[in-house]
Amino acid sequence: MGCVQSFRELCDRQKNTNVRKSLPAVCIVWQTAMIILFGVFIRYNEEADPHWVEHRHTNNISSDIENDFYYRYPSFQDVHVMIFVGFGFLMTFLKRYSFGAVGFNFLIAAFGLQWALLMQGWFHSLDYTDGKIKIGVESMINADFCVAGCLIAYGAVLGKVSAVQLLVMTLFGVTLFAVEEYIILNVVHARDAGGSMVIHTFGAYYGLSISWMLYRPNLDQSDRLHGSVYHSDVFAMIGTLFLWMFWPSLNSAITDHGDGQHRAAINTYLALAATVLTTVAISSLFQKHGKLDMVHIQNSTLAGGVAVGTAAEFMLMPYGALIVGFCCGIISTLGYVYLTPFMEKYLKIQDMCGIHNLHAMPGVIGGIVGAITAASATESVYGVEGLINTFDFEKDFKDMVPSRQGGHQAAGLCVALCFGLSLQPPLNVTTEKAHESCFNVYS
Amino acid sequence: MGCVQSFRELCDRQKNTNVRKSLPAVCIVWQTAMIILFGVFIRYNEEADPHWVEHRHTNNISSDIENDFYYRYPSFQDVHVMIFVGFGFLMTFLKRYSFGAVGFNFLIAAFGLQWALLMQGWFHSLDYTDGKIKIGVESMINADFCVAGCLIAYGAVLGKVSAVQLLVMTLFGVTLFAVEEYIILNVVHARDAGGSMVIHTFGAYYGLSISWMLYRPNLDQSDRLHGSVYHSDVFAMIGTLFLWMFWPSLNSAITDHGDGQHRAAINTYLALAATVLTTVAISSLFQKHGKLDMVHIQNSTLAGGVAVGTAAEFMLMPYGALIVGFCCGIISTLGYVYLTPFMEKYLKIQDMCGIHNLHAMPGVIGGIVGAITAASATESVYGVEGLINTFDFEKDFKDMVPSRQGGHQAAGLCVALCFGLSLQPPLNVTTEKAHESCFNVYS
Amino acid sequence: MGCVQSFRELCDRQKNTNVRKSLPAVCIVWQTAMIILFGVFIRYNEEADPHWVEHRHTNNISSDIENDFYYRYPSFQDVHVMIFVGFGFLMTFLKRYSFGAVGFNFLIAAFGLQWALLMQGWFHSLDYTDGKIKIGVESMINADFCVAGCLIAYGAVLGKVSAVQLLVMTLFGVTLFAVEEYIILNVVHARDAGGSMVIHTFGAYYGLSISWMLYRPNLDQSDRLHGSVYHSDVFAMIGTLFLWMFWPSLNSAITDHGDGQHRAAINTYLALAATVLTTVAISSLFQKHGKLDMVHIQNSTLAGGVAVGTAAEFMLMPYGALIVGFCCGIISTLGYVYLTPFMEKYLKIQDMCGIHNLHAMPGVIGGIVGAITAASATESVYGVEGLINTFDFEKDFKDMVPSRQGGHQAAGLCVALCFGLSLQPPLNVTTEKAHESCFNVYS
Repeated sequence: MGCVQSFRELCDRQKNTNVRKSLPAVCIVWQTAMIILFGVFIRYNEEADPHWVEHRHTNNISSDIENDFYYRYPSFQDVHVMIFVGFGFLMTFLKRYSFGAVGFNFLIAAFGLQWALLMQGWFHSLDYTDGKIKIGVESMINADFCVAGCLIAYGAVLGKVSAVQLLVMTLFGVTLFAVEEYIILNVVHARDAGGSMVIHTFGAYYGLSISWMLYRPNLDQSDRLHGSVYHSDVFAMIGTLFLWMFWPSLNSAITDHGDGQHRAAINTYLALAATVLTTVAISSLFQKHGKLDMVHIQNSTLAGGVAVGTAAEFMLMPYGALIVGFCCGIISTLGYVYLTPFMEKYLKIQDMCGIHNLHAMPGVIGGIVGAITAASATESVYGVEGLINTFDFEKDFKDMVPSRQGGHQAAGLCVALCFGLSLQPPLNVTTEKAHESCFNVYS
Repeated sequence: MGCVQSFRELCDRQKNTNVRKSLPAVCIVWQTAMIILFGVFIRYNEEADPHWVEHRHTNNISSDIENDFYYRYPSFQDVHVMIFVGFGFLMTFLKRYSFGAVGFNFLIAAFGLQWALLMQGWFHSLDYTDGKIKIGVESMINADFCVAGCLIAYGAVLGKVSAVQLLVMTLFGVTLFAVEEYIILNVVHARDAGGSMVIHTFGAYYGLSISWMLYRPNLDQSDRLHGSVYHSDVFAMIGTLFLWMFWPSLNSAITDHGDGQHRAAINTYLALAATVLTTVAISSLFQKHGKLDMVHIQNSTLAGGVAVGTAAEFMLMPYGALIVGFCCGIISTLGYVYLTPFMEKYLKIQDMCGIHNLHAMPGVIGGIVGAITAASATESVYGVEGLINTFDFEKDFKDMVPSRQGGHQAAGLCVALCFGLSLQPPLNVTTEKAHESCFNVYS
Repeated sequence: MGCVQSFRELCDRQKNTNVRKSLPAVCIVWQTAMIILFGVFIRYNEEADPHWVEHRHTNNISSDIENDFYYRYPSFQDVHVMIFVGFGFLMTFLKRYSFGAVGFNFLIAAFGLQWALLMQGWFHSLDYTDGKIKIGVESMINADFCVAGCLIAYGAVLGKVSAVQLLVMTLFGVTLFAVEEYIILNVVHARDAGGSMVIHTFGAYYGLSISWMLYRPNLDQSDRLHGSVYHSDVFAMIGTLFLWMFWPSLNSAITDHGDGQHRAAINTYLALAATVLTTVAISSLFQKHGKLDMVHIQNSTLAGGVAVGTAAEFMLMPYGALIVGFCCGIISTLGYVYLTPFMEKYLKIQDMCGIHNLHAMPGVIGGIVGAITAASATESVYGVEGLINTFDFEKDFKDMVPSRQGGHQAAGLCVALCFGLSLQPPLNVTTEKAHESCFNVYS
């Protein structure tokens, strides 16, 4: 409650202050803080350090190509494109807010990834011998993942919050994310390669909670801002396609070397293909005269990638991936048709980009699919070594069995939901000024 | 003839049915069929299976980096971008059809790749021990290739067919493609790394045949739909550039590991560079006042990539690649200036995107260049092992010599042409309704 | 002086000739010359040659994955996207020149990379045993780098020169670049992985010199051409983002295998993130009502990538990268606010895209940062082998020490500045006709 209170105060204070002073101040001060914290804590890991040559000899690594960089860098670049072009352009559909959407997305992602390197580093890659965080290519991918959670949340409040509020949202969001991720992956020992639970479920409910806090009944009067024009819809399609195409890289970016990355990419590729067909089917069925709705094509076609995130590295089987994609295309499109208007009218939750349909529901489905797939794993399907590698049955968890792992997966989903919904208390902040200043930022 | 008949009937039936019912029905039923067929037939191959660890030990593979995933995944992602953003945005130039072009491209590619995995799997990667198709990263690349053939065909009839007709076209196209590819690569034993013959020649003539069937003399009255506006032309340039930049990945995606992929990328890079200069030259020469025509810049600059497809993995030599690019830029641009109007007026073939100039002619040239390059291969240039690896002179073909391989390449080209033109009989379907429903789909 | 003279004459001659004849003639003749020169000089290197199999056995290389192609091809494709989409779309902001910017960028890059392969080949990869240049994936990356220098120069004179003049500028620019690069890297023995000095400092001053030559006092009357519209600014953001996202690939593309590439990517990633925050801060601080200026967001956010280019492969440390990014965001944005108007008014230098703020100043800073970082290198931080590998203390330079290397780095920066400014004499060419023909090229 305390932190919520302070968040409200911060929001209020920002609005009453001239944006001319507060935005530069926040950017400069926070960036300076980052430099100091990086100076104290962050160093290169052994694969990015010039001692790598000696490390190779000591550990009998035969070649430079064994450096993790070559396993993961192509996936990292694809994920990077998803964060900045994918999420950025997906939100350009508002005719008076295309540039603002891309620009603010850019700003909060650039800040968020620095803070994420620190927060995730403290939890996951702190070297206790010297108290430093050691970063490498996997840290950069994880930082981008963490930022994705905050960008999803931004989708709920698009055009309603100022740049400073967004930065505050990101600071809180990344912090929450790192704690939640640590609990789900390390304490609960759930697996979540593509982040159905960790990223999408958490990010979507975090955003919806904030949107509920910031509910403004007189939003309708600014409807003129929320229409789309033809070209802004084509721009949004650039975002959709780059997300759709590179999703196999996202789900396979941090899975196990070898078959793990290979299988995750195949499963995601298939799930997304199936989603496109069912999205088109439902969109055509529920619109008058069988016309397709651009919003559905732009968003629901991605639901399969979200839902296959947790199970992508498991033996979901190709037909299993298609089934997941099939269902999510239907559920997500129906969400746009029925659920979004319902939520706005009765629950006072305005969901600008429909993140409940694209991230929240498919994320929860992804968590459930992951739990079922894990629980039904057998040694004959995975092999003895394969089972240990895939589910990480090592060290403290070397006595784990698949059926119990299924329970842990379900527990992980609950943790993600709880963290996402923890910022729930109503604040009813009048965001009118913030809203307008935001639109004026880019004239 | 029977299949053509049924295709016409299908087209007619679709038009007379309300699109509100037919499009959802086709999408749901076909996707369900895919799930069932995938359940029966498709499994992961040994490199995407958790038994990979054991497979590595058994086959004495030293490291996870030897997994084919790391050889081909970056190329796969580039090809994926070409299919969805490249082909999709290349067709956005029509001012009232930008979104439709991208959206329908998305739909048929998502369906086509699933059907291609099955069709190509039955022909190429069926495991006779258990009757299953084993898929991996190379299967995904091949499925994307197969889809490319159908998207090329779509270019000929852009804006003239409905979504359901496009899906039918894709179903037929992928089936034909898989048979044609099997005959060319396995029966005739031609090599075709970048698909000059298999993809481009076949796809273009398949599309032109359909366009001829669907000829509508009163197309002129809807000319207003076919103009371009400034911004839709800039959107189209996004498609052009992503195709142009990633073409080296397309031509090298499934060539031999090591020098094969390396050489294919270099040859394609050079051929495309040369094409740009001759395209600009011819475009400037034949337009009044030396102005450049945007259509030429958007399309003909890509002809070199098509034409170097077959020979890219051979010892074409850097200057050879430049010569191929040089000639194709000229021929393709002249095609836009003279041949497209001629074909529409005298042959009753409307070629909306000019695929005859971009894919058909350069594809045929590519087949011929491939035959000549193969026929002139010598042991001194390739080395003994290099010759065997490059032309796959193994098993049934271990007694093959380069000069005979040249003949087989030429035979492969003939097969591609025959398959492309096999759907030739005139149908004269009145497509007016389909045409309008198509444009109304996205309001 | 002679070459400058001939450049002026060429510019004059072009203007007086009908563009209808000169552009096609230049394209065809130059491309033919390229084919002949490639035929005489260019061959595949041993990693792209079919003898690679034998080369592997001879050199005891265990696997195809050791082919340099797999180390560098993903980075090459990212750099390729930066050249064609990044630079191309970054210049689309002019409302009447979007297509022209992308199209001309395409043309000169396609020519420049061929000439760069020859020029850089003669200096760097000439095989003295047979007098041939041996090319591979690293040659393609270097050719793209060289082209980048010329595209930066194009930014200064955007919309003021004709296509033929641009080609002449590129021919001269690539030639100068290759000489300058040879002197800096091989004679002076400075290291410059991301090209802060070699590419950015040289390219920017080369462009500004030309802009000074071509100064036209009555440019104001064509102000209407230089405004931006909303959608052309969103297009420009596509260029910005693809440059920003793929900059880590550019700076790491030709660094040492293993830790070198890994470290360069991390440093660039961090520097760019910091730049975004300070750019937003300064932009918001200096614009009235705290509004952000789109030009700053589009350009200054990239300054960190330029400035970290030289030192990216050194042990700059993560906080060092953040500090570099922090400073460059401030300096670059202040440059747009104060320096660009000053330069136009008092120095008669029109800088259309603000390349002095984006490339020149950050490039010089990058050179200085590189010199300091090199001079302060110690064996304890790098390790004995690491120091030798990172700074290439081998052969003629095996007795080099870090402090002297710092001096060599500073000398390299001076060379880059001298070469960039060597085309300085005033020409005062009336470019009005060229200017108008250029805008008319794309109607």
